[in-house]
Amino acid sequence: MTQMLGKQSIRFETPPYIEASGSVVGKKEGEGPLGDLFDMVSEDDTFGCDCWEEAESTLQKEAAALTMGKAGVKPEDVRYIFAGDLLGQTIATSFGIVNYEIPLFGLYGACSTAGESMSLGAMCVAGGYANRVLAMTSSHFASAEKQFRFPLEYGNQRPVSATWTVTGSGAFLLGTEKSHVKISGITTGKIMDYGVRDSMNMGAAMAPAACDLIVQHFEDFQTSPKDYDRIITGDLGYVGQEILLTLTKERGYDISAVHTDCGIEIFDKDTQGTDSGGSGCGCSAVTMSAFFLPQIQRGELKKVLFVPTGALLSKISFNEGQTVPGIAHGVVLEYEA
Amino acid sequence: MTQMLGKQSIRFETPPYIEASGSVVGKKEGEGPLGDLFDMVSEDDTFGCDCWEEAESTLQKEAAALTMGKAGVKPEDVRYIFAGDLLGQTIATSFGIVNYEIPLFGLYGACSTAGESMSLGAMCVAGGYANRVLAMTSSHFASAEKQFRFPLEYGNQRPVSATWTVTGSGAFLLGTEKSHVKISGITTGKIMDYGVRDSMNMGAAMAPAACDLIVQHFEDFQTSPKDYDRIITGDLGYVGQEILLTLTKERGYDISAVHTDCGIEIFDKDTQGTDSGGSGCGCSAVTMSAFFLPQIQRGELKKVLFVPTGALLSKISFNEGQTVPGIAHGVVLEYEA
Repeated sequence: MTQMLGKQSIRFETPPYIEASGSVVGKKEGEGPLGDLFDMVSEDDTFGCDCWEEAESTLQKEAAALTMGKAGVKPEDVRYIFAGDLLGQTIATSFGIVNYEIPLFGLYGACSTAGESMSLGAMCVAGGYANRVLAMTSSHFASAEKQFRFPLEYGNQRPVSATWTVTGSGAFLLGTEKSHVKISGITTGKIMDYGVRDSMNMGAAMAPAACDLIVQHFEDFQTSPKDYDRIITGDLGYVGQEILLTLTKERGYDISAVHTDCGIEIFDKDTQGTDSGGSGCGCSAVTMSAFFLPQIQRGELKKVLFVPTGALLSKISFNEGQTVPGIAHGVVLEYEA
Repeated sequence: MTQMLGKQSIRFETPPYIEASGSVVGKKEGEGPLGDLFDMVSEDDTFGCDCWEEAESTLQKEAAALTMGKAGVKPEDVRYIFAGDLLGQTIATSFGIVNYEIPLFGLYGACSTAGESMSLGAMCVAGGYANRVLAMTSSHFASAEKQFRFPLEYGNQRPVSATWTVTGSGAFLLGTEKSHVKISGITTGKIMDYGVRDSMNMGAAMAPAACDLIVQHFEDFQTSPKDYDRIITGDLGYVGQEILLTLTKERGYDISAVHTDCGIEIFDKDTQGTDSGGSGCGCSAVTMSAFFLPQIQRGELKKVLFVPTGALLSKISFNEGQTVPGIAHGVVLEYEA
């Protein structure tokens, strides 16, 4: 029996499980509504390092250590890492995981990387290529601002459509050992370019990709919004959410009753000055890890479609006048008693 | 029967085939020893574009079109693209393939990306997740110099240990349909950091990773150099080759009789001023596609270990005084009558 479903999806014959997960975040994330749920909150966003990039590497190192620790496994028990981050040449990942000496598949999917890494990790385990893999990603407010906009020291102003890059790393240990959460399927996104050119409005750039992914997911799996307890996008924020709900309605699906967004959940926009919401690879990874995953583990959420979203730009492409295309990757997480 | 082999390898129960492959290169590559073998050589390295990044995107677009054309398939017949490039946030890939509307797994493995994309593509096809996928990558001399060192206009000098980034893109269509070349197995690399800090000596930075990968491959598959007609590294160049041969000998394997390197094959160092040799994601991809793959297709080479090698640095990590760790990914290509 083929596992391929429709145009862009896979239903796993032997679904892999999420055996453990860990989250590490910065100070501001710790002060937000989910603050008490994260495994580790640092009071110092440099994490004791000399530069922001090293700080972000430390986030990944700690998230991996935490996750392996929870599952009681050692690096040599993990066959592959699927990981990436937002920085050019994904240096946060390279320097974060080098000491674990685990074979690496380096990824780049912008802020959709959490979904991409879980998708490939799940394919790998379900395909019999590994008993255990780590899927992880990170972002850091200061390294991302420096990479995509201006160094913090420049003190530039932010429009209300801007999102706030989450300082955090989330890791997921996927494996064959039964837990209460399985990855039953995935839907893989293609690049969608609606011609948005505003790097300060990522929500608008990514919403079309999220819409396309979600609608394709319904068609491939022959489902509809009512089949999910939650449809959780990565980091569309308030601006992107509004566009997504409109676009999906135009395609014949009303997801407003079940939709939420990690970028909306992670900060309190009224007190934290985070404008449209949180963003970054780390946003969806830590919010899934600390907030949603435990609800699935306890059976409070039975079936969830997790859709991390990414904006495919670089400082160079932006300065050269290119558009900001989007991509999204969907992962179905289901409770198993 | 498990497909996992040893510590870092997979032997495919149902090996996927390389159904077609295509290569597109720039002017200098066309003037080199392999010039007549490439599918397309451009007289103009801008490929008619306004900037180098767009030129590199055009390379990927053309390589994909060529490859699908050779196999007589349309974009909708290709279930996934596994692709990446050297630029920050892999923008050459994003803008190169956007119009194909094929689900994308974006990768970053520096110059090892050709091996990474073929590995994941092969896992995907062999795992029953797709009948046909594209594995591709690119690099461009001018966009890479701007990204990692200085814009060409700066006119900086190059030491003899420096490699010359290949302007080119190579694509491989992997699928279930029988051809004369199958991917029988893979060995996936981990990051190796020997403390090299010279971004003008990539060969030295990557050779330890290549050595570790090749030795691990022999151990996992219980083979030795004599079992291969060629062991082909990606872009170690002359400097890196010497280090690799020494390191592997120290580990008990003499690969000098079968070793060659795409970076050595692609340019004539005496007449082309390319110092240590070619480099870049495109180097191994186009050399495999145009030079080695046809030899396997004709049965002149029966079994080859292809080991694209990558140096994991960014301009930021280099400027912050970080080392340049390396990674390598191995793919076994075998002739089938």
